[in-house]
Amino acid sequence: MAQELYFDDLDVGRRFESEPFAVTAEAIKAFAESYDPQPFHLDENAAADGFFGGLVASGWHVAALTMRRFVLEGLPVAGGLIGAGAELQWLRATRPGDTLRVFSEILECRPSRSRPTRGTVTIRSETRNQHGAVVQVMTTRIVVPRREPA
Amino acid sequence: MAQELYFDDLDVGRRFESEPFAVTAEAIKAFAESYDPQPFHLDENAAADGFFGGLVASGWHVAALTMRRFVLEGLPVAGGLIGAGAELQWLRATRPGDTLRVFSEILECRPSRSRPTRGTVTIRSETRNQHGAVVQVMTTRIVVPRREPA
Repeated sequence: MAQELYFDDLDVGRRFESEPFAVTAEAIKAFAESYDPQPFHLDENAAADGFFGGLVASGWHVAALTMRRFVLEGLPVAGGLIGAGAELQWLRATRPGDTLRVFSEILECRPSRSRPTRGTVTIRSETRNQHGAVVQVMTTRIVVPRREPA
Repeated sequence: MAQELYFDDLDVGRRFESEPFAVTAEAIKAFAESYDPQPFHLDENAAADGFFGGLVASGWHVAALTMRRFVLEGLPVAGGLIGAGAELQWLRATRPGDTLRVFSEILECRPSRSRPTRGTVTIRSETRNQHGAVVQVMTTRIVVPRREPA
């Protein structure tokens, strides 16, 4: 396991990225069955007539896959990645066979005023497909412990 | 199926809510294994020593479950619920055995300037637990077709 990172170890502008990962039709449908059961996420034939003209991944699936990459390959924050909030923009559809990759950058590191033992770190992540096109922008605020209380 | 709704059918202030639904330890772990594999979402014993003092649902799981309720019990928008973006705040942890319910309200209905065939509708949804406490606020922007082009 990589060395654990504390608030004091993080700086604005730090960048990190994931390995590429494929999105299959099976994975798209499995997520949709549990969490977003709409025809354009579940069935190629029904999807062909819909808004997207074919099967596409739920935006929430893309968000969840982006989170998975954070956990497996992102910043090894002490105590884990604890989200306070997030903002999502879905710019393009993700289709079966697409290969995605997450490119992240720290936007802000803000010490807590009320709690000297922690701070909030804001990370902007672009999830791009195999053509380099951005399919999702996710901005996440995480709670990060300080190595030494302020 | 309920009658399909178009942009022209929706108004600011319209409210809707879901039935209550339970969140089990099994469901928390299943989501986490696929999308947010951190100890406090996967294992009661490991979670006991962590930030939350016990097993908690991933915030992304709460978001996905909220989306599921939108699809099953939310607005039956013509063509489906197509998200352009979303904002999330996670205010409290969701624990095994909690029962959640989603309370939603339309905040804004904005016709598209560039595309006369659609508009954007902004919905604010509070996901509350069995104590009435808000665990998540989700604000979603969806793309909704017009019945008649503007």
